[in-house]
Amino acid sequence: MTKEQVTGAAEEEQQAQSKKALKKQQKEAEKAAKKAEKQAKLAAEQQTADEDDFAKDRYGVSAMVQSQEKVDRTLVRVQELTPHRGGQLVWVRARIHTSRAKGKQCFLVLRQQQFNVQALVAVGDRASKQMVKFAANITKESIVDVEAVVQTVEQKIESCSQQDVELHIERIFVISQAEPRLPLQLEDAVRPETEGEEEGRATVNQDTKLDNRVIDLRTTTSQAIFRLQSGVCQLFRDTLINKGFVEIQTPKIISAASEGGANVFTVSYFKTSAYLAQSPQLYKQMCICADFDKVFCVGPVFRAEDSNTHRHLTEFVGLDIEMAFNYHYHEVIDSITDTMVQIFKGLRDHFQTEIQTVGKQYPSEPFKFLEPTLRLEYREAVAMLRAAGVEMGDEEDLSTPNEKLLGRLVKEKYDTDFYVLDKYPLAVRPFYTMPDPNNPKYSNSYDMFMRGEEILSGAQRVHDAQLLTERALHHGIDLEKIKAYIDSFRYGAPPHAGGGIGLERVTMLYLGLHNVRQTSMFPRDPKRLTP
Amino acid sequence: MTKEQVTGAAEEEQQAQSKKALKKQQKEAEKAAKKAEKQAKLAAEQQTADEDDFAKDRYGVSAMVQSQEKVDRTLVRVQELTPHRGGQLVWVRARIHTSRAKGKQCFLVLRQQQFNVQALVAVGDRASKQMVKFAANITKESIVDVEAVVQTVEQKIESCSQQDVELHIERIFVISQAEPRLPLQLEDAVRPETEGEEEGRATVNQDTKLDNRVIDLRTTTSQAIFRLQSGVCQLFRDTLINKGFVEIQTPKIISAASEGGANVFTVSYFKTSAYLAQSPQLYKQMCICADFDKVFCVGPVFRAEDSNTHRHLTEFVGLDIEMAFNYHYHEVIDSITDTMVQIFKGLRDHFQTEIQTVGKQYPSEPFKFLEPTLRLEYREAVAMLRAAGVEMGDEEDLSTPNEKLLGRLVKEKYDTDFYVLDKYPLAVRPFYTMPDPNNPKYSNSYDMFMRGEEILSGAQRVHDAQLLTERALHHGIDLEKIKAYIDSFRYGAPPHAGGGIGLERVTMLYLGLHNVRQTSMFPRDPKRLTP
Repeated sequence: MTKEQVTGAAEEEQQAQSKKALKKQQKEAEKAAKKAEKQAKLAAEQQTADEDDFAKDRYGVSAMVQSQEKVDRTLVRVQELTPHRGGQLVWVRARIHTSRAKGKQCFLVLRQQQFNVQALVAVGDRASKQMVKFAANITKESIVDVEAVVQTVEQKIESCSQQDVELHIERIFVISQAEPRLPLQLEDAVRPETEGEEEGRATVNQDTKLDNRVIDLRTTTSQAIFRLQSGVCQLFRDTLINKGFVEIQTPKIISAASEGGANVFTVSYFKTSAYLAQSPQLYKQMCICADFDKVFCVGPVFRAEDSNTHRHLTEFVGLDIEMAFNYHYHEVIDSITDTMVQIFKGLRDHFQTEIQTVGKQYPSEPFKFLEPTLRLEYREAVAMLRAAGVEMGDEEDLSTPNEKLLGRLVKEKYDTDFYVLDKYPLAVRPFYTMPDPNNPKYSNSYDMFMRGEEILSGAQRVHDAQLLTERALHHGIDLEKIKAYIDSFRYGAPPHAGGGIGLERVTMLYLGLHNVRQTSMFPRDPKRLTP
Repeated sequence: MTKEQVTGAAEEEQQAQSKKALKKQQKEAEKAAKKAEKQAKLAAEQQTADEDDFAKDRYGVSAMVQSQEKVDRTLVRVQELTPHRGGQLVWVRARIHTSRAKGKQCFLVLRQQQFNVQALVAVGDRASKQMVKFAANITKESIVDVEAVVQTVEQKIESCSQQDVELHIERIFVISQAEPRLPLQLEDAVRPETEGEEEGRATVNQDTKLDNRVIDLRTTTSQAIFRLQSGVCQLFRDTLINKGFVEIQTPKIISAASEGGANVFTVSYFKTSAYLAQSPQLYKQMCICADFDKVFCVGPVFRAEDSNTHRHLTEFVGLDIEMAFNYHYHEVIDSITDTMVQIFKGLRDHFQTEIQTVGKQYPSEPFKFLEPTLRLEYREAVAMLRAAGVEMGDEEDLSTPNEKLLGRLVKEKYDTDFYVLDKYPLAVRPFYTMPDPNNPKYSNSYDMFMRGEEILSGAQRVHDAQLLTERALHHGIDLEKIKAYIDSFRYGAPPHAGGGIGLERVTMLYLGLHNVRQTSMFPRDPKRLTP
């Protein structure tokens, strides 16, 4: 935020504060002052103890890093601690992952993101009794700077990512201290549920994880999930830019709920009301009508649906595509499926460590896909389901359980976790969907599925203002409310198709996870707005 | 949107409709029916005329492209029409940019994005009188398929991008018809203002352009601006990913206005209220506390400020960076300035055509930058301004005119359009800004400027819960409201700094434009919510 805004905010705040609030703040201030006093006392005690300690300059709590000076010191990354650094004296900054004092020694595991290394402080030339005690008392999750000799070890340290070396600490300084009581333990948060159940060991439930997301995101599983998700975004964009797509930015605050007003969040906008966009579709289509030819966007999508399921969020990230085509919307399906295939290949080839890390906590089969992508017609799917005993009409929509069953049938028959279902019944699709020219019951629309769950919904759009008017009337939609949308097609519009992909669902289903909240850093649902 | 949602929306709509609305719809339907009748009549007339026309199969209005069949036909792009295709018979899809009938000939300019080519239909072997008449009557901005021979020309066609060839049309079919009256003319929309004033020729004012954005975005200027903007995003992300940053997605709906509640949009969220995020800062910082080390995000940022200036929007795209550092926040400044330099170089090297296209309508000096980036301290800037006659206090904030003046002074002295102003007075920065350890009047904070306007505001953040509490109290902020924010730093937090960049401002200032609405596809301000 800009400085002006914040200053303004502070002033307004100040004015609005009641006496009661002021009292509360005074109390807080007193509390802070007491805490500071206590810390000063502790520091003084330490100093007294220091006087007969030969190692007293080799450990302690550093002054807060406030950019006092430019220190000419290279910090080595934990993942770089390998036998070829054996014998070297290095500086490392890391968190205290675990700590165990044992007589005159203290064993620490130092962690940096998904990497960790064993470290040791032992009474001797370089460390005093007091220093070992100090090290043993550093709270878990605190950040420390250590100077240490890298020692190769004979027996692999199985519990650490750096299995061939350990650090012999000669100096240790606390850079940032963690409070002694953590709201959750990292080792519990990554424990597979089966292990928890079978061996009676602690696991952490999802709400506790999400309530304490700053700590939960430090686990190897979370680190892997979100690094892989960053990769999904990058692969999506890189593939499309290589195909000649242009990235666009579409507004999220809109003046009218183009779909009729259901499931839309209302925003107070100065003296009027506005809405949060349920999809960038209108804007993508306007860009096609404005000659951008092939466009994509990555951004938040808002749904005011009171759905409390494993796969619904009220705010998620849409990976959206829209593209003019020449003669047949399958040109667009081919572009989208190829993009998905490039994402799957990129993940498989460049994120194997992350996939395996997540697999340790949440085991799943590797994700399978075909080239070219399997494309089934809706009526074929209905036939497969009927053969499996499902009763359903030709023009009936797929229920979620039937989608899952279909996913299993397709996997059995074609050995793929990714496929396209084409030619949905016209009746179950939105008014702007292009009808099938050869069979009025069907439409030029498609969904894409990963492991039996929908990740994309798309279609050829009606690009003719007159047909669009007719279709809207047929659906009983108020023409007044979608006038701007229809008018976009009055000045020459190329035939086009597109679709929207849910990022969190792609990550979830690729990794074989079972809840979309695991792949949203700060998920939003009808019951969760924090952190 | 998903099909279920849309079906739901349509149903609700249907129920809500009053009789009055239904009547209106009937009227619309009648209007549509009449129009269809009229078109059928026209088609019948054409058929009669066709009977004595040898070329009757060589032109006409195509059936709407509804993916009837997969046509095995290659469409050549306009930019590929060069002399090496001389003599070839090709199919091209393009818009009618201009059209001029002249006796037995009709000259067309066909346009595809920023490229255009001259085309000719002339009465002869391949075209009848009726066909030329038909071509001459196609409305501007309609999309056509033409089959034509590529002819090299002796005299360059200065008015077209393809100067060395013209198309001799043998077939012409209308793919999508534009309405005859356009709300604005493309040639007026790209005319430089000076030319309009001096020669008394039409230009289009900004509101008309924005009201008819689908057409305005088709101009060469708009095409160039937004292709370059897509490039800014790509260069930003690619540079950061190369530096080891992770892309994150932060929520836009938040439960509390962490800055105190001013300038924030309220959203109704089921049975409660929520807010639109004024910046992703809290979430970026939480990711740093969660060990992601270096993060960036690209997404909408919302400001409920009633500012009607050339550089304020209520919704804009933030390019946000946050990064843990070792000992000094200048490590972060260096990362950000290097990222900006990579963007400037990438634009200079890969978007020269776009820069020149925009320059034709909006001339400006090429953007200049230094390597390494110039970094001035605030007090130096104050001294420069005082030397230029400005009266201001040491701890006074820079006014917008003074920022601009400073930009000119810096340009004169250092010959750069990009620089960093470091060490702002603590008093003018938000509560979470780290104070300067060496001088309590100043802070570890910075702004970055392009052509004398701010594009980034950033700082080392206070990463210590106790100091943060003190600073918030000093600013009179209600601790209750920022509890979650402060708590994020209680479990070990690395020193970190960051900043937020406004995408639209970067594009505007790089190109030397004068209004941020030119670089926002669908701008939002206190008075504009549409299209």
